[in-house]
Amino acid sequence: MARIGVTGLGTMGAALALNMADRGFDVAVHNRTEAVVDEFMEGTGSLSDRFTPVKSLEALVDALTPPRAVLIMVKAGDPVDAVIDALVPLLDKGDLIIDAGNADFNDTRRRTARVTDEGIGFLGMGVSGGEEGARHGPSIMVGGTEDLYRPVQDIIEAIAARYQDDPCAAWLGPDGAGHFVKTVHNGIEYADMQFIAEVFGILNASGRSYADQADLFAEWNGGPLQSYLIEITAEILRARDSETGAPVLDVIVDKAGQKGTGRWTVIEALKLGQSATAIEAAVAARSWSAEADARAKAEETYPTGTTRMSHVLDGDLEKALLAARMIGYGQGFALLSAASRHFDWSLDLARIAEIWRAGCIIRSSLLDDISSAARDGLPHDQLILAPGIAPRLADAVEGLRRVVLASMEEGVPVPGLAAALSYFDTYRRARGTTNMIQAQRDFFGRHGFERRDRDGTGFHGPWAESD
Amino acid sequence: MARIGVTGLGTMGAALALNMADRGFDVAVHNRTEAVVDEFMEGTGSLSDRFTPVKSLEALVDALTPPRAVLIMVKAGDPVDAVIDALVPLLDKGDLIIDAGNADFNDTRRRTARVTDEGIGFLGMGVSGGEEGARHGPSIMVGGTEDLYRPVQDIIEAIAARYQDDPCAAWLGPDGAGHFVKTVHNGIEYADMQFIAEVFGILNASGRSYADQADLFAEWNGGPLQSYLIEITAEILRARDSETGAPVLDVIVDKAGQKGTGRWTVIEALKLGQSATAIEAAVAARSWSAEADARAKAEETYPTGTTRMSHVLDGDLEKALLAARMIGYGQGFALLSAASRHFDWSLDLARIAEIWRAGCIIRSSLLDDISSAARDGLPHDQLILAPGIAPRLADAVEGLRRVVLASMEEGVPVPGLAAALSYFDTYRRARGTTNMIQAQRDFFGRHGFERRDRDGTGFHGPWAESD
Repeated sequence: MARIGVTGLGTMGAALALNMADRGFDVAVHNRTEAVVDEFMEGTGSLSDRFTPVKSLEALVDALTPPRAVLIMVKAGDPVDAVIDALVPLLDKGDLIIDAGNADFNDTRRRTARVTDEGIGFLGMGVSGGEEGARHGPSIMVGGTEDLYRPVQDIIEAIAARYQDDPCAAWLGPDGAGHFVKTVHNGIEYADMQFIAEVFGILNASGRSYADQADLFAEWNGGPLQSYLIEITAEILRARDSETGAPVLDVIVDKAGQKGTGRWTVIEALKLGQSATAIEAAVAARSWSAEADARAKAEETYPTGTTRMSHVLDGDLEKALLAARMIGYGQGFALLSAASRHFDWSLDLARIAEIWRAGCIIRSSLLDDISSAARDGLPHDQLILAPGIAPRLADAVEGLRRVVLASMEEGVPVPGLAAALSYFDTYRRARGTTNMIQAQRDFFGRHGFERRDRDGTGFHGPWAESD
Repeated sequence: MARIGVTGLGTMGAALALNMADRGFDVAVHNRTEAVVDEFMEGTGSLSDRFTPVKSLEALVDALTPPRAVLIMVKAGDPVDAVIDALVPLLDKGDLIIDAGNADFNDTRRRTARVTDEGIGFLGMGVSGGEEGARHGPSIMVGGTEDLYRPVQDIIEAIAARYQDDPCAAWLGPDGAGHFVKTVHNGIEYADMQFIAEVFGILNASGRSYADQADLFAEWNGGPLQSYLIEITAEILRARDSETGAPVLDVIVDKAGQKGTGRWTVIEALKLGQSATAIEAAVAARSWSAEADARAKAEETYPTGTTRMSHVLDGDLEKALLAARMIGYGQGFALLSAASRHFDWSLDLARIAEIWRAGCIIRSSLLDDISSAARDGLPHDQLILAPGIAPRLADAVEGLRRVVLASMEEGVPVPGLAAALSYFDTYRRARGTTNMIQAQRDFFGRHGFERRDRDGTGFHGPWAESD
């Protein structure tokens, strides 16, 4: 009898199953297309004894020690509901379903309610780290009731990445909390990737070779920017296409796909009255990249000529990436705080930063500082106001400013970096200019405003009397 | 017997009812709180004979000539459903309900289906122009089936604003089309107001008096920026608080409210794979403005010192506002195109621009040019690629660039203007830098990429082989 079942043996499901077997757990494996199970088993090598391959969900359930735990790793959306619908009648009260896919947390909330009604447990579990992470140690964000987590905690912690012996896995809160945190993780990832792509564009416009850029990113990876994304950027810059021998970056079409988590992050932020503008800029850049024909027409309509940047210092680019990263994380953490309040999740922001320190795509040395800052409490939920972060941002942001100015002057696009800087500049003004907006709203719609000289709401300007 | 009934005699409902009476229509008027009907009647003056005041929805329905038309103007959301629930059993097949509030178009789609099931017609009607517009001529955007519009077309066109004798009212498409277009109108309005607030901030940082600024906005209102929002900005800059005699702008707290339509615009854009970044920047600026304590703390943490800008030309500010406005409209129209395709609405973009030329908050001389451009067809759905617009944007955008650079150099926040410029700079690059993002996605997630040297998808980089 197996300790846990896995249905869905795509890239991620297969990797997680192998990871569990590696850690000594017996796993029953199932896939809707039967042949995939056979293919999977062929690749299990010395771990094959740990697996019970099965051809149906009935057989999967029969192969498990009660109370059973079944992990689903299928395409997000309707396929998850289809598997749940098929599984529920086969399971007994007290059994557990774990959705380890990239679910929309709203779906997870709905599924939790539906499955719980049948007396069956449900965990929504975000897994980050790509295929490599899933196989050898991802970061795992679990949502559901805590008592459902305990029986599988040993498996989940065993397969997770480790940061100095601390497993990068945690139960974070009820129902959709795990998938929500995973969504925000991905939103931060979008922003960080966009910042890097913009700096790549600046370096290109400065005439720097890929080899030179690779050295630069590798060097940065030894400093405060140390992170997985910076590390792989150096590797990508050096990589050559195996067919043509050309730099692989020259072979790849500049059209970025997106599976939705970046968009979800921005949408949920808006619904919660937050604004994740750096993440939105990254989502937008991907959207626009897909409109290749329109962009070609736009270049024809508004010719750029040859762009040659020369006055950006490497140190400023490093600071720009660091400042933007701090701001991107800051917008993500503000969103986590807002969601935690709204859904009453009591999210432990410091623990979230801790379990992101290894295994996941956004792992970076900065996260260790962020977890310390969050442990001390973030003033007004703002990372950029934390005493451990502020002096570093104050220094780095001036590099960001110089980079954005030099780029915008030459027309080199920096939507993400500029959005990060705009956030900083807007946020640090105690007195902004939205008094003009309130005046306009009151002028045309009698929406009313607050006065600076006394309490109350619904005051009107002199124009109201003319009506 | 009255020609039409109005329930909900708040600011907007009362103004619409008076407008109808002014145009010679007999109107039955109702409000849930009965006293409001009496108050309304007291203010009707010489128009009182046109009104039949009633105290219940039953009486409202009884007072109307069949087939009946009832216009609802209550708070968006649940109150609308409550009125519909109460009205439907009182109406006969063939009667018509018109929701003239600021509904979420998704709700309008749902309500259309629900009411239609009962054999009753439903129109979702967006009304823009504030109280003044509603009273003397708003811009009216109607959604529903066209045959439902015909019986009330004379009323709606009669009460609408006129642009050179052309009524600013139109049936735009099925179900939610009218409310969707109204939502996007408001999104564009958010962006335009934010651009103005940023230029106000720049002028403040340049030490320009309000009187001086008022003259500048008034002057701009005689040129290509001619518009309602520029006009009222000049008036606001001159206005003095009636209590203290101080400039009214100095009295108003810089905390901008929002009722949701800006957010809805950005959310719907994201759902449709679009990005309305200039509108998002405006939504964000309002959100951040509400966090007064955090901003005060941020100014303490990152002191700005005294900002003194001196090198921005008035002509560049004018160009900046014009370029940003073109881009804001462009993002709005791209969203309308995407929604029209997605929902199969066949929206007539030129007609939409036409009915926005008078009555509504964003009315501007630019809209006349936009309607001509849209009539000729927008290349790739992009306003900024239209032959009638592009040369003007090409000229104005360099002013926008100089203004953004000067502001960002001094730390004067320009999130909206910078977002507009970033959109322009990103969009006009035939070859962008998202090849780096695709490489990263393939590196960590095997997402695959397209190759520039041949067709196909799902190609992988050399790193995949190391796995």
